[in-house]
Amino acid sequence: MIMNFSQEEFKERVNKTKLEMSNRGLDVLILCDPSNMYYLTGYDAWSFYVPQALIVSLSDDSPIWFGRKQDANGARITTYLENNNIIGYAEKLIQSPPSHPFDDLTSFLQKKNLDNKNIGVEMDSYYYTAESHNRLVSQCPNANFHNAYLLVNWIRLVKSEKEILYMKQAGKLVELGMQRAYDSIKPGIRQSEVSGNIHQTLISGDKNMGGEYSGLTIILASGSAASAAHLTPSDKKFSNNEGTIIELGGVKNRYHCPMARTVFIGKPDEKIQDTMKITNESIENAIKNTKPGNTAHDVAVAFWDVLSKYGLEKESRAGYSIGVGYPPDWGEHTLSIRKNDMTELKPNVTFHLMAGMWMDKWGIEISESIRVTEKGCELFCNFSRGLYIV
Amino acid sequence: MIMNFSQEEFKERVNKTKLEMSNRGLDVLILCDPSNMYYLTGYDAWSFYVPQALIVSLSDDSPIWFGRKQDANGARITTYLENNNIIGYAEKLIQSPPSHPFDDLTSFLQKKNLDNKNIGVEMDSYYYTAESHNRLVSQCPNANFHNAYLLVNWIRLVKSEKEILYMKQAGKLVELGMQRAYDSIKPGIRQSEVSGNIHQTLISGDKNMGGEYSGLTIILASGSAASAAHLTPSDKKFSNNEGTIIELGGVKNRYHCPMARTVFIGKPDEKIQDTMKITNESIENAIKNTKPGNTAHDVAVAFWDVLSKYGLEKESRAGYSIGVGYPPDWGEHTLSIRKNDMTELKPNVTFHLMAGMWMDKWGIEISESIRVTEKGCELFCNFSRGLYIV
Repeated sequence: MIMNFSQEEFKERVNKTKLEMSNRGLDVLILCDPSNMYYLTGYDAWSFYVPQALIVSLSDDSPIWFGRKQDANGARITTYLENNNIIGYAEKLIQSPPSHPFDDLTSFLQKKNLDNKNIGVEMDSYYYTAESHNRLVSQCPNANFHNAYLLVNWIRLVKSEKEILYMKQAGKLVELGMQRAYDSIKPGIRQSEVSGNIHQTLISGDKNMGGEYSGLTIILASGSAASAAHLTPSDKKFSNNEGTIIELGGVKNRYHCPMARTVFIGKPDEKIQDTMKITNESIENAIKNTKPGNTAHDVAVAFWDVLSKYGLEKESRAGYSIGVGYPPDWGEHTLSIRKNDMTELKPNVTFHLMAGMWMDKWGIEISESIRVTEKGCELFCNFSRGLYIV
Repeated sequence: MIMNFSQEEFKERVNKTKLEMSNRGLDVLILCDPSNMYYLTGYDAWSFYVPQALIVSLSDDSPIWFGRKQDANGARITTYLENNNIIGYAEKLIQSPPSHPFDDLTSFLQKKNLDNKNIGVEMDSYYYTAESHNRLVSQCPNANFHNAYLLVNWIRLVKSEKEILYMKQAGKLVELGMQRAYDSIKPGIRQSEVSGNIHQTLISGDKNMGGEYSGLTIILASGSAASAAHLTPSDKKFSNNEGTIIELGGVKNRYHCPMARTVFIGKPDEKIQDTMKITNESIENAIKNTKPGNTAHDVAVAFWDVLSKYGLEKESRAGYSIGVGYPPDWGEHTLSIRKNDMTELKPNVTFHLMAGMWMDKWGIEISESIRVTEKGCELFCNFSRGLYIV
C-alpha cells in the first residue's frame, strides 16, 4: 500500500465531507472528480478515462470505490480501503453503448438500499458526463438528486502541513523545470526539443526526488502565438526577436506548484518591457495584500489598481486556488483572484497568482504560487520574475 | 495559421458529419469532445479544462467555435474558421457558479434561431458535463435534444493517407521512447528518472521531428503494482527480480501510436516466461486475422483461441481504435477488439491491439498499433515483442 497521508488525515477529510453532507441534507455523495477521489482515499491511477466514482454514504464508515475491474488492484494498492469497499464493474460495460458502467452503479445503490436517498452529485465536475447523470436519475426514480458540485473542493481550500510540504517539493521541481527552459531556448531550436527537456527535468527531478505528470501540460508559445492563452509546443523553431510565454507545473504526490514566465530572444521593444514592468508591479502589490483576513477580492483590487494606474486592461481573472490536480487542470475551482470573490484568505490557503497578458499579436505571462501564512504570505518559489533575455 | 490538413480534407470531414446529421434528422450538432473539435476544424489548445464547444449546423457552411474569450486567438491561429465563426464568451462566466459558460451558448443559439431545432449532443463524451447538458435543456425548451455520442468518432474510424502519415511518425517516436525506457531501467534507479527520460525522448524526438503530449500519460508499474492496469511512475526504485509494465504513446499532430512492453530485471520465473510466450502467440494470431472483410470479432476470436488453448483467461478487451486523442485518452471509443464487436475492418482502420495480462500479484503487457491494409495489415512499429531482460 502506498500512503502519502496518514489514516488520520484521510479520516479527517472524510469526516469534514460527511459533516457538510449532513448540513446539506445529503445521505449519499457520488464523486467523479479524480482529485476528490484522491483527496478522500489516496486513489491514484490514470483510470479516469472510463467511468468511475467514489461513494460516500453517511451510513458507511469508509467511502466505496467503484471502478473498472482491471483497476480494482490499483485501488487496493493506492488506498486504505478494505477489499469490501472496492467494487469492480464488468469489462463488458466498457465503451459498449447502450450499456454503461453506471448501470452497475445503480444496481449497487439499489442493493445497498441507497437508491431512495438524498444523493449529491458533482453536476459540473470533469468526467461526470450528461450520460452518467442520466443513468443515475432514470434508474433511481426514488432518489432525490442534489447538486454537490465543489462540496469537496471547498474542503480542500485550506491545506495541511503535509500538503504544504508536497507543494513546496513541487515548487522546487518547477524552479528546476523553468531553469531548464531558460537554458534550452536558443534561436533555431525546435519548441518540441525544449519541451522534451523541460519534461525531463520536471519529472526526473534532482538527486533527492522526482516529479509526476501534471494536471495541465506545458504551455509554450512564441511570437504572435503568445497572444493565445493555451497553445502547446510544436516543431516550430525559436526565432530572434520573438517573445515566448511558458507555463509549467511541478507535481509531487499529485500536488501542484505552477509557474509562468516570459522569455525573449534579442532585444524586446519598449511595449513589452513596459508591460512586464507594470505587470510585475501589479503582482508585487497583490502579494503585499495577500494576508489572513483579506479576501480574494482585496488581492484583485491591489492587482488591478496598479494596472489601471498605467491604463492597462486585463479582462481574465488573475489567479485561482491550487493543490491536488488531475488532467485537465491543476486549479481547484474554488477561490478566484477577481473582484467580488469574497473568499476569505486563511493561513494555508494556496493559490496561483497568474498574470497572463494576452494582447492582439503578442503576450506575456508572469505568475507566483502563493501560500497564505499566519501574518501574510510566502511564495513557493524563489525565481526572478523579470523578462528572461536569451 | 497552422494547418495539418488541407481545407479539402476538413471540408470532407464536415460534409460527412452533416450527411450523418441529416440521416439522423439533426439540424444542429454540439460537440465538446476536443478530439472531435480538432478533427473538424484543427482547433488545438489545452483549453478543454473550461467549457467549450463546436457547433455544426446544417444551415451554416462552416462550424462555429465557442470558447473562452482568451482562447479565441488560439482558434484564430489553429483553425481555418473565419472570425465570424469564432465566438468568445465572457471571462466572468469562468468557474463562478451559478453562472455557466453555456448560458452564453444558449443565448447564441437563440440569436441564431437554432434553439427550436433538433440538436444532437455527445451525451457521454469527455467534458460534456451533466451541468452543461442541464443548461442547454432547461434554457432551450423548444429544442429536441438527441444523443449524438460517437457520431463524429465513427466517421474518424477510417483514416486518410495524411492521418496514416502522422501515425507512422508517432510510431517512430514511440519506438524511440520505448528504447529509451529499456536503456534507462536499472536496479536502484527511480521510476521517475526513467519516466523523465522517456518523456524527453517522446517529445524531443530525433533530428527530424519532435512529438507532443499524449492523450494518456506514461503507464509504468513494477512488481505487484504491475497487477494494476493504470498506475503511473513514482519515486519507487527499480529492483532485481521484478517485472515492469510500460505503456507509451508517440504523438504527432495529435495522432497517436501507442505501444506496451514488459521489462524484467534478472531472471524471470517460468510463469512469466510462459505467459509472455502464450500472449505473444495470441497477438500473432490476431495480427494474422486482421484483414479487410474480417470484423473486430474475428480478431478477438483469433486472440482468445490461443489463450484458451493454453487455459489462460483474460476478461478485458484486447484493443480499440486509435487516432486523434486528447487527455484523458488516446482511444477513439468506437471499435473494440472483443467478441461480438461486428465492426468490419476496412483499409486504413487503425487500432491498438493490447494484451494486458493483469494477474493477482503481477502482470505483463504487449501491444501493437496496427493499420488494416488493402490485403491484410501492417504494424506501425517494428520493435521486438519479447520480454526485455535487464
